[in-house]
Amino acid sequence: MARIVMKFGGTSVADIDRIRNVARHVKREVEAGHEVAVVVSAMAGKTNELVTWTRAASPMHDAREYDAVVASGEQVTAGLLAITLQSMGIHARSWQGWQVPIRTDNAHGAARIIEIDGSFLVERFGEGQVAVIAGFQGLGPDNRIATLGRGGSDTSAVAIAAAVRADRCDIYTDVDGVYTTDPRVEPKARRLAKISFEEMLEMASLGAKVLQVRSVELAMVHKVRTFVRSSFEDPDAPGMGDPINPPGTLICDEEEIVEQQVVTGIAYAKDEAQISLRRVADRPGVSAAIFGPLAETHINVDMIVQNISEDGSKTDMTFTVPTGDLDKAVAVLEKAKVEVGFDAIQSEAGLVKVSVIGIGMRSHAGVAATAFMALAEKGINIRAITTSEIKISILIDGPYAELAVRTLHSVYGLDKH
Amino acid sequence: MARIVMKFGGTSVADIDRIRNVARHVKREVEAGHEVAVVVSAMAGKTNELVTWTRAASPMHDAREYDAVVASGEQVTAGLLAITLQSMGIHARSWQGWQVPIRTDNAHGAARIIEIDGSFLVERFGEGQVAVIAGFQGLGPDNRIATLGRGGSDTSAVAIAAAVRADRCDIYTDVDGVYTTDPRVEPKARRLAKISFEEMLEMASLGAKVLQVRSVELAMVHKVRTFVRSSFEDPDAPGMGDPINPPGTLICDEEEIVEQQVVTGIAYAKDEAQISLRRVADRPGVSAAIFGPLAETHINVDMIVQNISEDGSKTDMTFTVPTGDLDKAVAVLEKAKVEVGFDAIQSEAGLVKVSVIGIGMRSHAGVAATAFMALAEKGINIRAITTSEIKISILIDGPYAELAVRTLHSVYGLDKH
Repeated sequence: MARIVMKFGGTSVADIDRIRNVARHVKREVEAGHEVAVVVSAMAGKTNELVTWTRAASPMHDAREYDAVVASGEQVTAGLLAITLQSMGIHARSWQGWQVPIRTDNAHGAARIIEIDGSFLVERFGEGQVAVIAGFQGLGPDNRIATLGRGGSDTSAVAIAAAVRADRCDIYTDVDGVYTTDPRVEPKARRLAKISFEEMLEMASLGAKVLQVRSVELAMVHKVRTFVRSSFEDPDAPGMGDPINPPGTLICDEEEIVEQQVVTGIAYAKDEAQISLRRVADRPGVSAAIFGPLAETHINVDMIVQNISEDGSKTDMTFTVPTGDLDKAVAVLEKAKVEVGFDAIQSEAGLVKVSVIGIGMRSHAGVAATAFMALAEKGINIRAITTSEIKISILIDGPYAELAVRTLHSVYGLDKH
Repeated sequence: MARIVMKFGGTSVADIDRIRNVARHVKREVEAGHEVAVVVSAMAGKTNELVTWTRAASPMHDAREYDAVVASGEQVTAGLLAITLQSMGIHARSWQGWQVPIRTDNAHGAARIIEIDGSFLVERFGEGQVAVIAGFQGLGPDNRIATLGRGGSDTSAVAIAAAVRADRCDIYTDVDGVYTTDPRVEPKARRLAKISFEEMLEMASLGAKVLQVRSVELAMVHKVRTFVRSSFEDPDAPGMGDPINPPGTLICDEEEIVEQQVVTGIAYAKDEAQISLRRVADRPGVSAAIFGPLAETHINVDMIVQNISEDGSKTDMTFTVPTGDLDKAVAVLEKAKVEVGFDAIQSEAGLVKVSVIGIGMRSHAGVAATAFMALAEKGINIRAITTSEIKISILIDGPYAELAVRTLHSVYGLDKH
C-alpha cells in the first residue's frame, strides 16, 4: 500500500466527461489499496473567464477580491469530482483551502504556502476517504482565501504530498511526461524515464512548461517523488496502476538516477531581447546603478555578460530581458544614463535562448565546446553565453531557434534510436 | 443616517455593466451617509450552469457537494462588486458565508439560517466599510458551506438586516415593485406603495414570484421593513435616494399601513390539477390515509374541500396538486384504494387558482360574495373554494384565468384611474 497525491490540471477536468475519466484514474489507485488524496485545477478556460471579469470590473483590482473570485474555479471542480467519485461507489469528499486549512502568507494573488497540518488529511485516509482538494488556494492570515498564482495547483499538490509524507505525487497533465526537448520542434525527442529535481528546475524555468517552477523547488526541498503523466490515457490500460514505474517521467533526487547522461535535455525560451550598454565606466557600484532601476520597474533580467573594453577603464555590459519589456527597459536606462555613465545603448528583440541541461556535465569536460562547434558548423551566430554547473545557455537569433534545438539534441545523442 | 441592507438578484448582476450599475446604487446610499451592507446573487444563468454540471456528474448527487459547487456563483459576484465599488472610491470588501459567519442548520441544499452574529458586520460599518456578502449560503455545523435553496439570497438579505437591526432591507430586482396583480395579464394593475407582510406572504406563495416566501416570513417575524424596487432605473434619478419613500413597494407591518384597502391584490397560480375521490368512507383517520401517502411521495397538496354525500356515511374529497404531479398522485391513491375505501377517482388537469387577498377583508363582510357574483356574471364556473382570514381562493378552468383576474381586479376597484 502506498500513499499517493494525484493532481489533475485544467485540460484534464475541462468537462464532465473528462472529470469522469479522471475519476477512473482515482478509482484504479483506490482499488489497488492505496491511500489517495486528489488536487484539482479549475476547468480549462474558467480561470481565464474569472480573471477577465475582475479586469473588466477594474484594471487595478484589489488582489484580495481577485482571490475571492478566481479561487471559485477550483472549488467547482473539487465538488464535481467528489460527486463523480461517489457515483462510482468511492467514499470521497471535497475540501477547500480554508477547510483543511492550507495556510499561506498574505501575498494575495501570489501567496506562498506556509503550513499544511497533514493530520487533517491523514484522518481522512484513516476513514477510507478520498479527499478532493481545491488546488491553487489557501487561507491567508487575514482569514481570507489567498491564491498561489497561476499554475499554483502543482504547488498545492506537492505541498500536500510533503505534508502527508506521500510516497508519490502524480501530476496528471495533457502530456505524458518530460521530454528531452519540445517534440513539436524535434520529433525525435524522447520521453525521459527519470529526471533530477535540479535538471527539471532548469527545464521548467527555461520554458518547458510542464510543471510550475515553484512546485519543483518544493518537491526538491521535501524530496517528494513526483511523476508527470498523462490523464488522457485509458485509466485501465496495462501498467497504468504500476506502483513503482507507472508510465510517465519521475522527477526525483539525483541519487535515484543510476545511469546518468551527460546531457538530459535541450530547452529554449523565445522572445528574448538583448541590451548592450557600450563603454560603461568600470567602477564599484555600476552594476547596482544599472540593475537596481530595472528591478524596481519589475523587469526580469536574465543573462548578464560583462566584457572589458580595450583600454581597461571601460566595460561593455550585455544582458537580456523579455522582448515585451524591452521598450520599458531602454527608457529606464536612458533615464539613468548620467548616473551609470555609458556611451550608448544597443538593443535587439526577437532572440532565442537555447539551453543544454544535464547534471552529468559537472563531471564531464568539453560539453560547452561541443555545443559551440555544432552551432558554428550550421552557421549559427552566438550572441552571448552563460553557464552554470548543470546548464549552458546560448543566445542566438530567433530564426535559428528550431535548427539550434535539433542540432544540439542530435549532437548530445538524445535522438530516438 | 440610516442602516440599509441592499440585495441584488441575478438579472441585476448578470454582467459587468450591470454590476457597475448596481455599484452606482450602492454609491448613492453611501454618499448619503448611510451604513450599507450588500447581498448579491449569482450572475443570471450561473447557478443553472453549476446545477446542470452537478446533475451531469451524477443525478443522485450528494447535497454537501452540490452546495460546495453551487455556492461559488455568489462568491464570484461578491468579489466583482467589491472590486467595482473600490474602483469608484468606495471602501468595500467581499465576505463569504463562512467568514461572517452566517450559521445554518445541516440541511444541505435547503438549509435554514440559525444565527448571524451582527457584531461582525456592525464592526465593518464602524470602519466605514461596505460589506458585500455572498447570498444564498452559510456555514453548516459540519464546517461546510450550506446553501439555502433557490432564491435564498432574499432570505440572506432579510436575515442580515434583522441581525444588524437595519432600518431597511432593499430588495433590488427586475421589477419596480409589487403590483395589484400581474401587469402582463391586466395592464391596469397598479404598483402598491405598501403591502403588509401577511398579504405579501399570500401574494408570494400564490405565484407572484417577486420575493421568496421564506424571506417574507423572516421579515414578518423580525419586522424588517423591506422594499421591493428596481435595479434597472437610473441610480441617480430624482427620488431614488429618498430615505423614507424610495420608489418601489414597502412590505411592512400592517400597523404602518394607514389607509387599508379591503382587497390589496389578485394572485393566480396556473397548472393546478383537481382530484376528487368519490364516496369515501367517512371514518376517523381517512384524511390521514389519503394525504399521508401523498406527503411521503413529496406531492404538495394545496386546496382541500370535503363535502358530505347524500346518505351521510360517505363523503366526497376534493383537493388540488400541481399538474406535473397528477399522474403520480393518482397512482399513489389507486394503490391506497382499499385502505382508504372509495368508489372512484376523478381528476382534471390544467386548472387555475385565482386568489383575492387583503387584510381589510377581516373586517368587511361580503367580499367573497362579490367575487362569486362577478365571476358568475362572466359565466366562469367555480370548481372549488377555500378561504382564510385574508384570502379567498377560487379554482376555475384554465382558459378563464386572465378573464377572471381582470374581472376581480376591476370589481374590487384595483384598476388604475
